[in-house]
Amino acid sequence: MQIAVLLYDRFTALDAIGPYEVLSRLPGAELVFVAEQPGPVAADTGMLALSAGAIGDVPHPDIVLVPGGPGQEAQMDDGPVHEWLRKADAASSWTTSVCTGSLILAAAGVLAGRRATSHWLALERLREFGARPTVARVVIDGKYVTAAGVSAGIDMALGLSARIAGTPTAQAIQLMMEYAPQPPLNAGTPFTAPPGLVSRMRMRSRHPQRVE
Amino acid sequence: MQIAVLLYDRFTALDAIGPYEVLSRLPGAELVFVAEQPGPVAADTGMLALSAGAIGDVPHPDIVLVPGGPGQEAQMDDGPVHEWLRKADAASSWTTSVCTGSLILAAAGVLAGRRATSHWLALERLREFGARPTVARVVIDGKYVTAAGVSAGIDMALGLSARIAGTPTAQAIQLMMEYAPQPPLNAGTPFTAPPGLVSRMRMRSRHPQRVE
Repeated sequence: MQIAVLLYDRFTALDAIGPYEVLSRLPGAELVFVAEQPGPVAADTGMLALSAGAIGDVPHPDIVLVPGGPGQEAQMDDGPVHEWLRKADAASSWTTSVCTGSLILAAAGVLAGRRATSHWLALERLREFGARPTVARVVIDGKYVTAAGVSAGIDMALGLSARIAGTPTAQAIQLMMEYAPQPPLNAGTPFTAPPGLVSRMRMRSRHPQRVE
Repeated sequence: MQIAVLLYDRFTALDAIGPYEVLSRLPGAELVFVAEQPGPVAADTGMLALSAGAIGDVPHPDIVLVPGGPGQEAQMDDGPVHEWLRKADAASSWTTSVCTGSLILAAAGVLAGRRATSHWLALERLREFGARPTVARVVIDGKYVTAAGVSAGIDMALGLSARIAGTPTAQAIQLMMEYAPQPPLNAGTPFTAPPGLVSRMRMRSRHPQRVE
């Protein structure tokens, strides 16, 4: 089972590494990082890079995963990455994203008519590309599985693991990574965070959008 | 504020990247990955490597962070890494670990007499090095902050961020990474996972130990 994680300049590392940590533990999994330009790909902080192979070398992965990050804006135009996504999606068992990765999938045309989620600040933009923005941490519509912002990729990957390999295998992965989260604060969604903080982030965002 | 994340062959990527994603967002943070041998350091899956600088180039970080992983076993003997940890700890504001990273800190001698946690399968081993095993997701004893297995590093880093930069800053980081986890299964601790699974993991572990 081949899993291809698309990287691009200024991706958010946890978007990719959360699901990697889960999905790479599935029996028979071969997880590869791929990019339009093979080599080191810098994350959004500039403090970390991951090595990637070439998208052309992985034409038909079983699972496609697109992380988000501020670099997503530069991945919205048609070109080799979108072509790869469309071809990979045509043969994939699962096409997935984390955070604003869903905007890239949608821009490539593979989420038309699908329910999908994204980072809360970007969710409404899915509509521009014919997808149906859905407020949920993980949205499954057929083989399309999209997760909300950054950390939601861990939940997405665990749920996907249960579907692919069965609940006992997913439970074993969860126990080994001791995934029983206890956030010390309660500001993880725009519904629970201080309203002033939510407003400031919407203002600061280059794409202030309504969240349904 | 310099944050040094120690890498070594066969570390677990999420142990390092979970806290990285949080701590690198702190105002003024400069997060660097360091290793005894600079260059690419392979994670435990063999499917990912992170580039590291040399430990000798970062002698006095404000925060030291040691991730865990199966490669921890090869980091238990005294030598350049332990020497670096002791010197860095002598000047650090915070000395921290995720998962079995606490065993490395303890073996280096910096957790003597301290309450600390670790991956649930390794917790009891802390006692061999004079630390006091404590069942908790995050344990804070003075400037020593240890987290339980793998994913617990995210909770640890958020709590630490609140102490360092204040609650509003930590809330902003939590909201941007949409950290409001919803695990789709409830097997994240040995107390909630199916007992048969817990038993099998204890048997399989090379270090079957009692968890208090």
